[in-house]
Amino acid sequence: MPMFSKILIANRGEIAVRIIRACRELGIQTVAVYSEADKEALHTEMADEAICIGPARSSESYLNMQEILSAAIVTNAEAIHPGFGFLSENSLFATMCAECNIKFIGPSEKTIDAMGNKIHARQLMQKAGVPVIPGSDGAIATLAEAEALAEKIGYPVMLKAAAGGGGKGIRKVPTKSELEKNFLSAKSEAKAAFGDDSMYMEKIIYPARHIEVQILGDQQGDVIHLGERDCSLQRNNQKVLEEAPSVVIGEETRKMLGDIAVKAGKAVNYESAGTIEFLRDEDGSFYFMEMNTRIQVEHPITEMVTGIDIVKKQIKIAAGEPLGLKQSDVTFQGHSIECRINAENPAFNFAPSPGKIKTLLLPSGGLGLRVDSAMYSGVTIPPYYDSMIAKIIVHGEDRFDALMKMQRALGEFVSDGVITNVEFQMDLISHPSVLFGDYDTSFLQKTFLPEWQQSE
Amino acid sequence: MPMFSKILIANRGEIAVRIIRACRELGIQTVAVYSEADKEALHTEMADEAICIGPARSSESYLNMQEILSAAIVTNAEAIHPGFGFLSENSLFATMCAECNIKFIGPSEKTIDAMGNKIHARQLMQKAGVPVIPGSDGAIATLAEAEALAEKIGYPVMLKAAAGGGGKGIRKVPTKSELEKNFLSAKSEAKAAFGDDSMYMEKIIYPARHIEVQILGDQQGDVIHLGERDCSLQRNNQKVLEEAPSVVIGEETRKMLGDIAVKAGKAVNYESAGTIEFLRDEDGSFYFMEMNTRIQVEHPITEMVTGIDIVKKQIKIAAGEPLGLKQSDVTFQGHSIECRINAENPAFNFAPSPGKIKTLLLPSGGLGLRVDSAMYSGVTIPPYYDSMIAKIIVHGEDRFDALMKMQRALGEFVSDGVITNVEFQMDLISHPSVLFGDYDTSFLQKTFLPEWQQSE
Repeated sequence: MPMFSKILIANRGEIAVRIIRACRELGIQTVAVYSEADKEALHTEMADEAICIGPARSSESYLNMQEILSAAIVTNAEAIHPGFGFLSENSLFATMCAECNIKFIGPSEKTIDAMGNKIHARQLMQKAGVPVIPGSDGAIATLAEAEALAEKIGYPVMLKAAAGGGGKGIRKVPTKSELEKNFLSAKSEAKAAFGDDSMYMEKIIYPARHIEVQILGDQQGDVIHLGERDCSLQRNNQKVLEEAPSVVIGEETRKMLGDIAVKAGKAVNYESAGTIEFLRDEDGSFYFMEMNTRIQVEHPITEMVTGIDIVKKQIKIAAGEPLGLKQSDVTFQGHSIECRINAENPAFNFAPSPGKIKTLLLPSGGLGLRVDSAMYSGVTIPPYYDSMIAKIIVHGEDRFDALMKMQRALGEFVSDGVITNVEFQMDLISHPSVLFGDYDTSFLQKTFLPEWQQSE
Repeated sequence: MPMFSKILIANRGEIAVRIIRACRELGIQTVAVYSEADKEALHTEMADEAICIGPARSSESYLNMQEILSAAIVTNAEAIHPGFGFLSENSLFATMCAECNIKFIGPSEKTIDAMGNKIHARQLMQKAGVPVIPGSDGAIATLAEAEALAEKIGYPVMLKAAAGGGGKGIRKVPTKSELEKNFLSAKSEAKAAFGDDSMYMEKIIYPARHIEVQILGDQQGDVIHLGERDCSLQRNNQKVLEEAPSVVIGEETRKMLGDIAVKAGKAVNYESAGTIEFLRDEDGSFYFMEMNTRIQVEHPITEMVTGIDIVKKQIKIAAGEPLGLKQSDVTFQGHSIECRINAENPAFNFAPSPGKIKTLLLPSGGLGLRVDSAMYSGVTIPPYYDSMIAKIIVHGEDRFDALMKMQRALGEFVSDGVITNVEFQMDLISHPSVLFGDYDTSFLQKTFLPEWQQSE
C-alpha cells in the first residue's frame, strides 16, 4: 500500500494539532473536523481542509460517526486518525471505516473489542502468560459468587462493568457490608450505560506505581516495546505528571515488562501504537491492569527518550509499512517528564476554568523542551471538552536535569485570562518526594494535596 | 571552585535569553544588562535582575566595558557570559574581568589574543600540524613581497589585516593589476581601524564548503570535539542556514577533522566552547580558516545531534568542573538544520525591516523542533542591532526527515507587522540542490539568488 495522500483527524485540541503536524512532516494532506464551538480552534485553522460536523456537544459532533465518515468521503480522505478519547477505542467506528474503505489508524476492530471487554482482555492476558490482578476469571453471575470471591482475594475490592468505560458501572467496595448494595447498583448502572450488566471483580492494588509500557506493532506481525512510563502521580485516576523512565524500573525489570508487553501485543496481533498498563504493588510485583488500544496523552515522553515519533509510526504502519525497527534498535537516552497544564482551579477542587486566554506565552527555546498545545493568545477555551492548555515536555540528560528544565519551563509560562494549574505543578515538582522519585498512586491525594491545601 | 550563584549576561537578543535559560536550569541567578532601546526586550524581562548600561548605540552600551563591569560588581555577579559578537572576543574585556575577580566565561585572554591575530593563529595552527590556506607566513612588509607571493599562490587572493574583524582592512584582489591599489588602501584602513597596519595574504578558496568543528576544552586540559557543522549556505559571508552533520563528511573525515580541531585546541590550552572553521575546496582538501573563541549562533544544531548543552558546559567549565565526557562518549544521532529568521526584505536586497511585531506565532510542538527567540507579540525590533527574530532548529532521524520538519515549522511561522525572510528560507530548503545537499559557498549568490529573483 502506498503512503496516504490525505488523512482526516477525528479529534480536536492538542492531539489533533499534533497529528496534523506529523502528517505535514510526512507530506500528507489533512482534513480537520470541528464542532460549532471549535470554529476558531487551532486544529481547524491548521488543517488543509476543515469540515464542521455539528453542534458543540461531543455526542453530536466528535462522536458523530456518520458525520465524520461523510466528511472523510466528501474530502477523499484515505484514512482517519482518531487520536485519543472520542472514537479512538470504538470498534463499531473502526468497522464502519473499513466498510467505507477508509483505513482506521489503529488496531483492528477485533483487537479493540478484545481489549475493550475487560473480562476478555484479562483472559487473553492470562492465556498469554501475563500476570493479572487477582480477581474473577469471568463474569460474576450472583451476589453469593461475588461474596465468596471477595473473601478469597481480600477487601477492598473493585467491581467493574465488563463493557465499562468513563467511570460508569464501577464501584469501590471497602468491606463486606457494602458489597450487596454496590453490586446491585453497579449492575443496573452498567445495564443502563452499556446494555450489558456483566460485572467482574478485582483486588484493589493501592497504593501502587502505575507503570505502562508503550508498544508498536505492524501489519507484518512484528511487535516491539518502547520502554515504560511512570504515571503514578494521579488525582482521581487522572494523570497529572508522567515520566520516563521510571525510577523503580531497572534494566532487568524493563526487559521483563517489555517482554510481557510484546507477548501481550502478539497475542492479539496488535497493529499500531498501544499501551499495556500495569500496577506495581509495594512488594514489587506487577499486574496487568488494562490495554489502551490508541495513542496516549503522555506518548511524548517516550518519543523524547527513544527518538521515535510514535504518531508517524502509527501512520506508516497503517499504510502497510513494516516497523523498520528491531527491539535492539530501540535505545533509551536521558530522562523525560510531562506536566499537563489545564485551565482549572486547584484551590477550588480543580474546577475547570474555561474562557478566553487573553495572552498566552508558552515556554520555549533551549535544548530538550517541547510544548504540545492547541491554544494561542486570544482563543477561547470552550466549556464542552477537556480543559487542557498545553503539555509541557522536557528531556534532560538525567532525571535531575529534566526536573530543573521543567522548573525553568513552568516559570516561563504566562496565561492571562484563565486560571491554571501551573503553580500547582511547580509546587509538585519541587516536593521532596517527587524530587527523589519516592511517590505512588496515593501520593497526590493522601500526601501532597493535604499539605498543599494547608500551605495555600 | 563551587558553581556560580549569579552570572551577568553581557549581551542581548536570543543568545542572552538562551543563556538565561541555561542558568535557570542550573539554578544560577541572572543579571541582564540592557540599552535604553531594550527596556522591553525579553532578556531584560526574563533575568532576575536587569541593569541599564547606556543609550541604544552599542558602543555606549553593549560594548561599554566599564558600565558592564560596574553592573557585575554592584550585583555581585561572579561571572560574565559574553555570548557572541559584542565583547565576546575582546581580550581586554577578559583581562578587565579577571582584574575585577569576575570569571569571564570563555577562553583566557591569551588564547583570545592568539586566535584574534590572524597571522599568529595561522602560525600556531601550522606548528600544530594543522593545514592552513596557502598564503603569507607572517606580515607582508612591502608591495613587492605581496606581488611575489600572489604570483606564487595564484590569483584571486585575499588581503587581510592581521588585527582584522568586522570586514575592515580586507580586500579581494582578482588580478595582479588590482593588487597595488588594494594593498595600500587596506593598509591605511587597517591603520585607522586597529592602529595596526600589518597585512597578510591568503589564496581565495571559492567555491568551497564551509565546514566548522565545535570543540570544548576544560581547565584540566582536556579537549574534545562535537563534530562538524556545514555552513556553506551564505550570503555576503553571512550564514543563512546551517546543518549537522555535513553531507560531504564521512566517518573517517569526521575523525580526521575532529583530531585536527582537538590538536588545535590543545595547542592553545583551549578552555570553554570554540569553533575551528575550515574550508573544503573542490578536490576535497581542508584548510584552517580561523578559530572563533566563543559560542556561535549555530551552536544548537550541534546540541541537537549530540544531546550536549554547550552553553551549560561553558558555564560548568568556567566554574572549574572537568568536561565529564571522553571523546568516545560523544555520539551523533540523526540530522539537524537551523534556519535564521530575520526581519529583513529579501526582495529588497535583504534590507533590515525593524519595527513592531504585532502578532508573533512561533512554530512549536512535535518531536525534534526547537525555536530560540527573544521576540514576542507586541515587541518592537529596534533598528540598532541585528534583525534576528528567531532561530528555527529541527532534529530529524535523517536529513530528509529534518528537511520535512523544517518545511512544517516554516509553514507555521506567523509574524504580523514586519517583513521576514521566512518565504525565502522556505524556497531555499525546497531547492533541489539543497534537498540533495549539493551546494557550496557560491550557491546562494551565484545560483539561488538569481533564480529566486527571477521567480519573484
